[in-house]
Amino acid sequence: MDIDIKIGILTASDRASAGIYEDLSGQAIIDTLNDYLKSPWREIYEVIPDDQESIENALVEMADKEGCCLIVTTGGTGPAKRDVTPEATESVCDKMMPGFGELMRQVSLKYVPTAILSRQTAGIRNKTLIVNLPGKPKSIRECLDAVFPAIPYCIDLLEGPYIECNEDVIKPFRPKK
Amino acid sequence: MDIDIKIGILTASDRASAGIYEDLSGQAIIDTLNDYLKSPWREIYEVIPDDQESIENALVEMADKEGCCLIVTTGGTGPAKRDVTPEATESVCDKMMPGFGELMRQVSLKYVPTAILSRQTAGIRNKTLIVNLPGKPKSIRECLDAVFPAIPYCIDLLEGPYIECNEDVIKPFRPKK
Amino acid sequence: MDIDIKIGILTASDRASAGIYEDLSGQAIIDTLNDYLKSPWREIYEVIPDDQESIENALVEMADKEGCCLIVTTGGTGPAKRDVTPEATESVCDKMMPGFGELMRQVSLKYVPTAILSRQTAGIRNKTLIVNLPGKPKSIRECLDAVFPAIPYCIDLLEGPYIECNEDVIKPFRPKK
Repeated sequence: MDIDIKIGILTASDRASAGIYEDLSGQAIIDTLNDYLKSPWREIYEVIPDDQESIENALVEMADKEGCCLIVTTGGTGPAKRDVTPEATESVCDKMMPGFGELMRQVSLKYVPTAILSRQTAGIRNKTLIVNLPGKPKSIRECLDAVFPAIPYCIDLLEGPYIECNEDVIKPFRPKK
Repeated sequence: MDIDIKIGILTASDRASAGIYEDLSGQAIIDTLNDYLKSPWREIYEVIPDDQESIENALVEMADKEGCCLIVTTGGTGPAKRDVTPEATESVCDKMMPGFGELMRQVSLKYVPTAILSRQTAGIRNKTLIVNLPGKPKSIRECLDAVFPAIPYCIDLLEGPYIECNEDVIKPFRPKK
Repeated sequence: MDIDIKIGILTASDRASAGIYEDLSGQAIIDTLNDYLKSPWREIYEVIPDDQESIENALVEMADKEGCCLIVTTGGTGPAKRDVTPEATESVCDKMMPGFGELMRQVSLKYVPTAILSRQTAGIRNKTLIVNLPGKPKSIRECLDAVFPAIPYCIDLLEGPYIECNEDVIKPFRPKK
Protein backbone atom coordinates (compact mmCIF):
# COMPACT_ATOMS: atom_id res chain seq x y z
CA MET A 1 0.00 0.00 0.00
CA ASP A 2 1.16 3.45 -0.83
CA ILE A 3 1.38 5.70 2.21
CA ASP A 4 0.71 9.30 1.35
CA ILE A 5 1.04 10.83 4.81
CA LYS A 6 4.71 11.70 5.15
CA ILE A 7 5.84 13.58 8.23
CA GLY A 8 9.30 15.07 8.65
CA ILE A 9 10.98 14.90 12.07
CA LEU A 10 14.01 17.15 12.23
CA THR A 11 16.26 17.28 15.26
CA ALA A 12 18.60 20.27 15.38
CA SER A 13 21.32 19.52 17.89
CA ASP A 14 25.09 19.85 17.70
CA ARG A 15 25.55 17.13 20.30
CA ALA A 16 23.00 14.62 19.05
CA SER A 17 24.25 14.97 15.49
CA ALA A 18 27.82 14.37 16.67
CA GLY A 19 26.70 11.21 18.47
CA ILE A 20 27.55 12.65 21.91
CA TYR A 21 24.09 11.69 23.07
CA GLU A 22 21.09 9.87 21.79
CA ASP A 23 18.33 11.88 20.11
CA LEU A 24 15.61 11.31 22.71
CA SER A 25 13.61 14.30 21.45
CA GLY A 26 13.23 13.10 17.89
CA GLN A 27 12.23 9.71 19.28
CA ALA A 28 9.67 11.38 21.58
CA ILE A 29 8.06 13.04 18.56
CA ILE A 30 7.88 9.75 16.64
CA ASP A 31 6.39 7.96 19.67
CA THR A 32 3.80 10.69 20.15
CA LEU A 33 2.77 10.67 16.49
CA ASN A 34 2.45 6.86 16.60
CA ASP A 35 0.14 7.35 19.58
CA TYR A 36 -1.93 10.01 17.83
CA LEU A 37 -2.33 8.76 14.28
CA LYS A 38 -4.75 6.10 13.16
CA SER A 39 -3.89 6.71 9.51
CA PRO A 40 -0.75 4.96 8.31
CA TRP A 41 2.13 7.42 8.02
CA ARG A 42 5.78 7.40 7.09
CA GLU A 43 8.53 9.25 8.93
CA ILE A 44 11.31 11.18 7.22
CA TYR A 45 13.75 11.57 10.07
CA GLU A 46 17.00 13.50 10.25
CA VAL A 47 19.41 14.73 12.93
CA ILE A 48 21.58 17.71 12.01
CA PRO A 49 23.78 20.30 13.73
CA ASP A 50 22.46 23.69 14.92
CA ASP A 51 23.44 25.41 11.72
CA GLN A 52 20.94 27.71 10.01
CA GLU A 53 21.80 26.74 6.46
CA SER A 54 21.70 23.01 7.24
CA ILE A 55 18.32 23.38 8.93
CA GLU A 56 16.95 25.36 5.98
CA ASN A 57 18.23 22.76 3.50
CA ALA A 58 16.72 19.91 5.49
CA LEU A 59 13.35 21.69 5.72
CA VAL A 60 13.30 22.44 2.00
CA GLU A 61 14.20 18.86 1.13
CA MET A 62 11.53 17.40 3.42
CA ALA A 63 8.91 19.80 2.06
CA ASP A 64 9.68 20.05 -1.64
CA LYS A 65 11.33 16.74 -2.47
CA GLU A 66 9.85 14.32 0.05
CA GLY A 67 6.44 16.00 -0.02
CA CYS A 68 5.91 15.97 3.76
CA CYS A 69 2.56 17.52 4.73
CA LEU A 70 3.97 18.27 8.18
CA ILE A 71 7.48 18.82 9.52
CA VAL A 72 8.08 18.88 13.25
CA THR A 73 11.42 20.19 14.49
CA THR A 74 12.99 19.90 17.91
CA GLY A 75 15.91 21.89 19.32
CA GLY A 76 17.45 25.24 18.63
CA THR A 77 14.62 27.45 19.85
CA GLY A 78 16.33 28.99 22.89
CA PRO A 79 18.28 32.26 23.25
CA ALA A 80 21.81 30.81 22.87
CA LYS A 81 24.08 31.73 19.98
CA ARG A 82 23.64 28.39 18.20
CA ASP A 83 19.84 28.40 18.59
CA VAL A 84 18.64 29.32 15.11
CA THR A 85 15.75 26.97 14.30
CA PRO A 86 13.06 29.73 14.31
CA GLU A 87 15.16 31.86 11.97
CA ALA A 88 15.69 28.91 9.61
CA THR A 89 11.95 28.16 9.72
CA GLU A 90 10.93 31.73 8.99
CA SER A 91 13.41 31.95 6.15
CA VAL A 92 11.92 28.97 4.23
CA CYS A 93 8.24 29.74 4.94
CA ASP A 94 5.78 31.71 2.80
CA LYS A 95 3.58 32.60 5.76
CA MET A 96 3.96 32.46 9.51
CA MET A 97 1.50 31.02 12.03
CA PRO A 98 2.10 32.96 15.27
CA GLY A 99 -0.70 31.18 17.14
CA PHE A 100 1.32 27.97 17.50
CA GLY A 101 4.23 29.56 19.38
CA GLU A 102 1.90 31.65 21.53
CA LEU A 103 -0.10 28.62 22.65
CA MET A 104 2.94 26.40 23.24
CA ARG A 105 4.62 29.06 25.40
CA GLN A 106 1.40 29.54 27.32
CA VAL A 107 1.13 25.81 28.01
CA SER A 108 4.80 25.50 29.01
CA LEU A 109 4.43 28.51 31.33
CA LYS A 110 2.23 26.35 33.55
CA TYR A 111 5.33 24.25 34.28
CA VAL A 112 8.31 26.62 34.12
CA PRO A 113 8.69 30.42 34.06
CA THR A 114 11.54 30.00 31.58
CA ALA A 115 8.98 29.01 28.92
CA ILE A 116 9.15 32.61 27.69
CA LEU A 117 12.74 31.94 26.55
CA SER A 118 11.46 29.56 23.90
CA ARG A 119 11.26 31.26 20.52
CA GLN A 120 9.44 28.41 18.78
CA THR A 121 7.18 29.30 15.89
CA ALA A 122 5.35 27.68 12.98
CA GLY A 123 4.84 28.50 9.35
CA ILE A 124 3.83 27.23 5.96
CA ARG A 125 6.01 26.48 2.98
CA ASN A 126 3.77 25.86 -0.02
CA LYS A 127 1.68 22.87 1.20
CA THR A 128 3.80 21.95 4.20
CA LEU A 129 3.14 22.98 7.78
CA ILE A 130 6.37 23.38 9.79
CA VAL A 131 6.11 23.42 13.59
CA ASN A 132 9.00 24.06 16.00
CA LEU A 133 8.89 22.14 19.26
CA PRO A 134 11.15 22.69 22.26
CA GLY A 135 14.19 20.49 22.83
CA LYS A 136 13.20 18.66 26.02
CA PRO A 137 11.33 15.34 25.52
CA LYS A 138 8.88 16.10 28.38
CA SER A 139 7.90 19.49 26.89
CA ILE A 140 7.46 17.94 23.45
CA ARG A 141 4.42 15.93 24.50
CA GLU A 142 2.94 18.88 26.41
CA CYS A 143 3.26 21.12 23.37
CA LEU A 144 2.00 18.58 20.83
CA ASP A 145 -1.03 17.79 23.01
CA ALA A 146 -1.87 21.52 22.87
CA VAL A 147 -1.44 22.24 19.17
CA PHE A 148 -2.05 18.92 17.42
CA PRO A 149 -5.88 19.15 17.53
CA ALA A 150 -5.61 21.97 14.98
CA ILE A 151 -3.10 20.26 12.68
CA PRO A 152 -5.26 17.83 10.63
CA TYR A 153 -7.65 20.65 9.64
CA CYS A 154 -4.71 22.89 8.79
CA ILE A 155 -3.42 20.17 6.46
CA ASP A 156 -6.91 19.88 4.91
CA LEU A 157 -6.77 23.62 4.16
CA LEU A 158 -3.35 23.12 2.56
CA GLU A 159 -4.95 20.42 0.35
CA GLY A 160 -2.84 17.72 1.96
CA PRO A 161 -3.79 14.15 2.93
CA TYR A 162 -6.73 13.49 5.28
CA ILE A 163 -5.31 12.55 8.69
CA GLU A 164 -7.30 10.35 11.05
CA CYS A 165 -6.44 10.15 14.73
CA ASN A 166 -6.96 7.78 17.63
CA GLU A 167 -9.66 9.92 19.17
CA ASP A 168 -9.28 8.42 22.62
CA VAL A 169 -5.72 9.84 22.60
CA ILE A 170 -6.15 13.16 20.73
CA LYS A 171 -9.24 14.81 19.25
CA PRO A 172 -8.60 16.67 16.01
CA PHE A 173 -11.09 19.46 15.36
CA ARG A 174 -12.62 20.10 11.96
CA PRO A 175 -15.24 22.87 11.86
CA LYS A 176 -18.53 21.99 10.16
CA LYS A 177 -18.93 23.80 6.87
CA MET B 1 -23.97 67.53 9.99
CA ASP B 2 -20.46 66.54 9.08
CA ILE B 3 -19.52 63.11 10.37
CA ASP B 4 -15.84 62.83 11.09
CA ILE B 5 -15.73 59.24 12.32
CA LYS B 6 -15.19 57.17 9.21
CA ILE B 7 -14.63 53.44 9.59
CA GLY B 8 -13.53 51.17 6.79
CA ILE B 9 -15.00 47.67 6.55
CA LEU B 10 -13.08 45.51 4.13
CA THR B 11 -14.18 41.99 3.27
CA ALA B 12 -11.55 39.89 1.53
CA SER B 13 -13.27 36.92 -0.05
CA ASP B 14 -13.02 35.44 -3.53
CA ARG B 15 -16.52 34.00 -3.30
CA ALA B 16 -18.32 36.97 -1.75
CA SER B 17 -16.70 39.36 -4.24
CA ALA B 18 -17.81 37.12 -7.12
CA GLY B 19 -21.36 37.19 -5.78
CA ILE B 20 -21.35 33.42 -5.02
CA TYR B 21 -22.56 34.19 -1.55
CA GLU B 22 -23.65 37.14 0.50
CA ASP B 23 -21.07 38.97 2.61
CA LEU B 24 -22.48 38.10 6.03
CA SER B 25 -19.15 38.90 7.72
CA GLY B 26 -18.92 42.50 6.57
CA GLN B 27 -22.56 42.93 7.61
CA ALA B 28 -21.78 41.44 11.04
CA ILE B 29 -19.06 44.05 11.52
CA ILE B 30 -21.39 46.90 10.54
CA ASP B 31 -24.12 45.58 12.88
CA THR B 32 -21.67 45.26 15.75
CA LEU B 33 -20.30 48.78 15.27
CA ASN B 34 -23.85 50.15 15.14
CA ASP B 35 -24.43 48.41 18.46
CA TYR B 36 -21.23 49.79 20.00
CA LEU B 37 -21.05 53.40 18.83
CA LYS B 38 -23.02 56.26 20.29
CA SER B 39 -21.11 58.77 18.14
CA PRO B 40 -22.41 59.13 14.58
CA TRP B 41 -20.13 57.34 12.15
CA ARG B 42 -19.93 56.62 8.46
CA GLU B 43 -18.99 53.30 6.89
CA ILE B 44 -16.67 52.93 3.91
CA TYR B 45 -17.46 49.40 2.84
CA GLU B 46 -15.84 47.24 0.19
CA VAL B 47 -15.79 43.57 -0.82
CA ILE B 48 -12.77 42.41 -2.80
CA PRO B 49 -11.10 39.13 -3.83
CA ASP B 50 -8.33 37.50 -1.75
CA ASP B 51 -5.58 39.16 -3.69
CA GLN B 52 -2.72 40.79 -1.79
CA GLU B 53 -2.33 43.80 -4.07
CA SER B 54 -6.09 44.50 -4.14
CA ILE B 55 -6.24 44.33 -0.34
CA GLU B 56 -3.25 46.66 -0.01
CA ASN B 57 -4.79 49.16 -2.44
CA ALA B 58 -8.14 49.12 -0.63
CA LEU B 59 -6.45 49.64 2.75
CA VAL B 60 -4.35 52.53 1.44
CA GLU B 61 -7.39 54.18 -0.15
CA MET B 62 -9.50 53.85 3.00
CA ALA B 63 -6.67 55.21 5.16
CA ASP B 64 -5.09 57.91 3.02
CA LYS B 65 -7.91 59.11 0.81
CA GLU B 66 -11.04 58.45 2.85
CA GLY B 67 -9.33 59.31 6.13
CA CYS B 68 -10.75 56.35 8.07
CA CYS B 69 -9.54 56.34 11.71
CA LEU B 70 -10.19 52.59 11.86
CA ILE B 71 -10.31 49.85 9.24
CA VAL B 72 -11.66 46.45 10.14
CA THR B 73 -11.01 43.57 7.75
CA THR B 74 -12.62 40.15 7.60
CA GLY B 75 -11.41 37.07 5.76
CA GLY B 76 -8.10 35.84 4.45
CA THR B 77 -6.39 35.18 7.78
CA GLY B 78 -6.15 31.39 7.60
CA PRO B 79 -3.33 29.13 6.34
CA ALA B 80 -4.64 28.53 2.81
CA LYS B 81 -2.80 29.71 -0.28
CA ARG B 82 -5.25 32.57 -0.99
CA ASP B 83 -5.23 33.78 2.64
CA VAL B 84 -3.03 36.88 2.50
CA THR B 85 -4.82 39.56 4.53
CA PRO B 86 -2.18 39.67 7.32
CA GLU B 87 0.60 40.03 4.75
CA ALA B 88 -1.28 42.87 3.00
CA THR B 89 -1.88 44.55 6.37
CA GLU B 90 1.75 44.31 7.45
CA SER B 91 2.92 45.62 4.11
CA VAL B 92 0.92 48.90 4.37
CA CYS B 93 1.51 49.52 8.09
CA ASP B 94 4.22 51.64 9.75
CA LYS B 95 4.02 49.72 13.00
CA MET B 96 2.48 46.45 14.11
CA MET B 97 0.29 45.84 17.17
CA PRO B 98 0.86 42.19 18.13
CA GLY B 99 -1.40 42.37 21.18
CA PHE B 100 -4.58 42.38 19.09
CA GLY B 101 -3.90 39.07 17.35
CA GLU B 102 -2.69 37.46 20.57
CA LEU B 103 -5.85 38.39 22.46
CA MET B 104 -8.23 37.46 19.65
CA ARG B 105 -6.63 34.02 19.26
CA GLN B 106 -6.79 33.51 23.01
CA VAL B 107 -10.48 34.36 23.08
CA SER B 108 -11.28 32.16 20.07
CA LEU B 109 -9.35 29.28 21.67
CA LYS B 110 -12.10 29.05 24.28
CA TYR B 111 -14.42 27.94 21.48
CA VAL B 112 -12.27 26.01 18.99
CA PRO B 113 -8.73 24.55 19.08
CA THR B 114 -8.28 25.64 15.46
CA ALA B 115 -8.13 29.28 16.64
CA ILE B 116 -4.32 28.96 16.45
CA LEU B 117 -4.65 28.72 12.66
CA SER B 118 -5.83 32.32 12.49
CA ARG B 119 -3.01 34.62 11.58
CA GLN B 120 -4.92 37.84 12.21
CA THR B 121 -2.94 40.89 13.28
CA ALA B 122 -3.30 44.67 13.62
CA GLY B 123 -1.17 47.65 12.78
CA ILE B 124 -1.03 51.36 12.22
CA ARG B 125 -0.70 53.24 8.96
CA ASN B 126 -0.09 56.90 9.76
CA LYS B 127 -3.24 57.78 11.79
CA THR B 128 -5.29 54.72 10.90
CA LEU B 129 -5.64 51.60 13.03
CA ILE B 130 -6.13 48.46 10.91
CA VAL B 131 -7.50 45.34 12.63
CA ASN B 132 -7.93 41.92 11.01
CA LEU B 133 -10.90 39.89 12.15
CA PRO B 134 -11.59 36.24 11.31
CA GLY B 135 -13.96 35.32 8.48
CA LYS B 136 -16.78 33.67 10.42
CA PRO B 137 -19.63 36.02 11.52
CA LYS B 138 -19.87 34.34 14.94
CA SER B 139 -16.15 34.80 15.68
CA ILE B 140 -16.31 38.43 14.57
CA ARG B 141 -18.45 39.49 17.53
CA GLU B 142 -16.37 37.43 19.97
CA CYS B 143 -13.18 39.07 18.75
CA LEU B 144 -14.56 42.61 18.61
CA ASP B 145 -15.98 42.29 22.13
CA ALA B 146 -12.45 41.43 23.31
CA VAL B 147 -10.41 44.12 21.57
CA PHE B 148 -12.81 47.02 21.03
CA PRO B 149 -12.52 48.41 24.60
CA ALA B 150 -8.95 49.45 23.70
CA ILE B 151 -9.75 50.98 20.32
CA PRO B 152 -11.19 54.44 21.19
CA TYR B 153 -8.12 55.25 23.33
CA CYS B 154 -5.81 53.97 20.58
CA ILE B 155 -7.51 56.37 18.17
CA ASP B 156 -7.08 59.21 20.72
CA LEU B 157 -3.33 58.45 20.76
CA LEU B 158 -3.33 58.60 16.95
CA GLU B 159 -4.97 62.05 17.23
CA GLY B 160 -8.15 60.80 15.58
CA PRO B 161 -11.78 61.64 16.41
CA TYR B 162 -13.16 61.09 19.92
CA ILE B 163 -15.35 57.98 19.84
CA GLU B 164 -18.20 57.58 22.30
CA CYS B 165 -19.79 54.19 22.93
CA ASN B 166 -23.05 52.79 24.24
CA GLU B 167 -21.54 51.84 27.57
CA ASP B 168 -24.23 49.30 28.38
CA VAL B 169 -23.03 47.39 25.31
CA ILE B 170 -19.25 47.95 25.37
CA LYS B 171 -17.06 49.87 27.81
CA PRO B 172 -14.14 51.69 26.19
CA PHE B 173 -11.23 52.25 28.57
CA ARG B 174 -9.31 55.52 28.70
CA PRO B 175 -6.59 55.67 31.39
CA LYS B 176 -6.66 58.76 33.61
CA LYS B 177 -3.74 61.05 32.91
CA MET C 1 35.79 44.97 44.13
CA ASP C 2 35.07 44.63 40.45
CA ILE C 3 31.38 44.41 39.67
CA ASP C 4 30.72 42.39 36.54
CA ILE C 5 26.93 42.58 36.48
CA LYS C 6 26.16 45.71 34.52
CA ILE C 7 22.54 46.50 33.71
CA GLY C 8 21.44 49.23 31.34
CA ILE C 9 18.34 51.27 32.16
CA LEU C 10 17.18 53.30 29.20
CA THR C 11 14.28 55.72 29.43
CA ALA C 12 12.87 56.86 26.09
CA SER C 13 10.77 59.96 26.70
CA ASP C 14 10.69 63.30 24.93
CA ARG C 15 9.39 65.03 28.04
CA ALA C 16 11.64 63.39 30.65
CA SER C 17 14.72 63.99 28.50
CA ALA C 18 13.76 67.67 28.12
CA GLY C 19 13.45 67.94 31.90
CA ILE C 20 9.68 68.64 31.72
CA TYR C 21 9.11 65.94 34.26
CA GLU C 22 11.13 63.62 36.43
CA ASP C 23 11.95 60.15 35.10
CA LEU C 24 9.90 58.13 37.60
CA SER C 25 9.89 55.07 35.33
CA GLY C 26 13.66 54.69 35.12
CA GLN C 27 13.79 55.12 38.90
CA ALA C 28 11.09 52.45 39.34
CA ILE C 29 13.26 50.00 37.36
CA ILE C 30 16.34 50.76 39.46
CA ASP C 31 14.34 50.37 42.69
CA THR C 32 12.89 47.07 41.52
CA LEU C 33 16.28 45.68 40.52
CA ASN C 34 17.72 46.73 43.89
CA ASP C 35 14.90 44.78 45.50
CA TYR C 36 15.47 41.70 43.34
CA LEU C 37 19.26 41.34 43.15
CA LYS C 38 21.44 39.87 45.87
CA SER C 39 24.51 40.02 43.61
CA PRO C 40 26.20 43.42 43.48
CA TRP C 41 25.37 45.19 40.21
CA ARG C 42 26.07 48.46 38.50
CA GLU C 43 23.56 50.59 36.63
CA ILE C 44 24.25 52.30 33.32
CA TYR C 45 21.42 54.78 33.19
CA GLU C 46 20.34 57.12 30.40
CA VAL C 47 17.32 59.26 29.52
CA ILE C 48 16.88 60.10 25.84
CA PRO C 49 14.17 61.44 23.50
CA ASP C 50 11.77 59.16 21.59
CA ASP C 51 13.95 59.08 18.53
CA GLN C 52 14.66 55.74 16.87
CA GLU C 53 18.27 56.44 16.00
CA SER C 54 19.08 57.76 19.48
CA ILE C 55 17.51 54.69 21.08
CA GLU C 56 19.44 52.37 18.77
CA ASN C 57 22.71 54.16 19.52
CA ALA C 58 22.12 54.02 23.27
CA LEU C 59 21.29 50.29 23.12
CA VAL C 60 24.38 49.52 21.05
CA GLU C 61 26.60 51.52 23.40
CA MET C 62 25.19 49.82 26.52
CA ALA C 63 25.54 46.39 24.93
CA ASP C 64 28.80 46.56 23.00
CA LYS C 65 30.84 49.15 24.86
CA GLU C 66 29.56 48.93 28.44
CA GLY C 67 29.08 45.17 28.25
CA CYS C 68 25.66 45.16 29.92
CA CYS C 69 24.26 41.62 30.25
CA LEU C 70 20.76 43.09 30.43
CA ILE C 71 19.20 46.32 29.19
CA VAL C 72 15.75 47.32 30.36
CA THR C 73 13.96 50.10 28.48
CA THR C 74 10.90 52.08 29.46
CA GLY C 75 8.70 54.24 27.27
CA GLY C 76 7.94 54.43 23.59
CA THR C 77 6.01 51.15 23.24
CA GLY C 78 2.55 52.56 22.47
CA PRO C 79 0.83 53.26 19.14
CA ALA C 80 1.64 57.00 18.88
CA LYS C 81 3.81 58.44 16.15
CA ARG C 82 6.82 59.01 18.45
CA ASP C 83 6.60 55.51 20.01
CA VAL C 84 9.45 53.65 18.33
CA THR C 85 11.23 51.70 21.08
CA PRO C 86 10.19 48.24 19.77
CA GLU C 87 11.39 49.16 16.26
CA ALA C 88 14.74 50.38 17.65
CA THR C 89 15.06 47.20 19.71
CA GLU C 90 14.32 44.90 16.79
CA SER C 91 16.74 46.78 14.59
CA VAL C 92 19.75 46.21 16.91
CA CYS C 93 18.91 42.61 17.91
CA ASP C 94 20.17 39.37 16.33
CA LYS C 95 17.18 37.39 17.53
CA MET C 96 13.79 38.24 18.97
CA MET C 97 12.16 36.77 22.08
CA PRO C 98 8.39 37.03 21.48
CA GLY C 99 7.49 35.30 24.75
CA PHE C 100 8.40 38.35 26.83
CA GLY C 101 5.95 40.71 25.16
CA GLU C 102 3.22 38.08 25.08
CA LEU C 103 3.49 37.43 28.82
CA MET C 104 3.75 41.11 29.80
CA ARG C 105 0.65 41.99 27.76
CA GLN C 106 -1.20 39.08 29.30
CA VAL C 107 -0.31 40.22 32.81
CA SER C 108 -1.22 43.86 32.10
CA LEU C 109 -4.55 42.73 30.60
CA LYS C 110 -5.63 41.74 34.10
CA TYR C 111 -5.54 45.43 34.99
CA VAL C 112 -6.47 47.36 31.83
CA PRO C 113 -7.97 46.36 28.45
CA THR C 114 -5.63 48.85 26.78
CA ALA C 115 -2.71 46.50 27.54
CA ILE C 116 -3.07 45.22 23.97
CA LEU C 117 -1.86 48.63 22.75
CA SER C 118 1.57 47.98 24.21
CA ARG C 119 3.96 46.78 21.54
CA GLN C 120 6.76 45.89 23.95
CA THR C 121 9.13 43.12 22.91
CA ALA C 122 12.51 41.64 23.85
CA GLY C 123 15.52 40.43 21.95
CA ILE C 124 19.17 39.52 22.06
CA ARG C 125 22.11 41.46 20.74
CA ASN C 126 25.18 39.25 20.90
CA LYS C 127 25.36 38.49 24.68
CA THR C 128 22.92 41.15 25.86
CA LEU C 129 19.24 40.61 26.61
CA ILE C 130 17.15 43.71 25.85
CA VAL C 131 13.67 43.93 27.38
CA ASN C 132 11.11 46.69 26.71
CA LEU C 133 8.90 47.64 29.63
CA PRO C 134 5.85 49.92 29.51
CA GLY C 135 6.14 53.58 30.45
CA LYS C 136 3.99 53.70 33.58
CA PRO C 137 5.84 53.09 36.88
CA LYS C 138 3.02 50.87 38.25
CA SER C 139 3.04 48.60 35.18
CA ILE C 140 6.82 48.31 35.34
CA ARG C 141 6.77 46.32 38.58
CA GLU C 142 3.88 44.13 37.37
CA CYS C 143 5.74 43.29 34.17
CA LEU C 144 9.12 42.72 35.81
CA ASP C 145 7.56 40.43 38.43
CA ALA C 146 6.20 38.32 35.56
CA VAL C 147 9.29 38.01 33.35
CA PHE C 148 12.26 38.40 35.70
CA PRO C 149 12.18 34.78 36.98
CA ALA C 150 13.37 33.72 33.49
CA ILE C 151 16.08 36.37 33.11
CA PRO C 152 19.01 34.98 35.17
CA TYR C 153 18.85 31.65 33.30
CA CYS C 154 18.63 33.48 29.99
CA ILE C 155 21.81 35.34 30.89
CA ASP C 156 23.45 32.02 31.83
CA LEU C 157 22.62 30.74 28.34
CA LEU C 158 24.19 33.89 26.87
CA GLU C 159 27.35 33.09 28.89
CA GLY C 160 26.90 36.20 31.01
CA PRO C 161 27.48 36.69 34.75
CA TYR C 162 25.72 34.48 37.32
CA ILE C 163 22.93 36.55 38.89
CA GLU C 164 21.74 35.76 42.41
CA CYS C 165 18.42 37.08 43.69
CA ASN C 166 16.74 37.80 47.00
CA GLU C 167 14.57 34.72 46.79
CA ASP C 168 12.00 36.02 49.27
CA VAL C 169 11.33 38.82 46.74
CA ILE C 170 11.70 37.01 43.39
CA LYS C 171 12.50 33.40 42.55
CA PRO C 172 14.67 32.94 39.49
CA PHE C 173 14.22 29.58 37.81
CA ARG C 174 17.12 27.52 36.50
CA PRO C 175 16.17 24.10 35.10
CA LYS C 176 18.20 21.15 36.40
CA LYS C 177 20.48 19.75 33.74
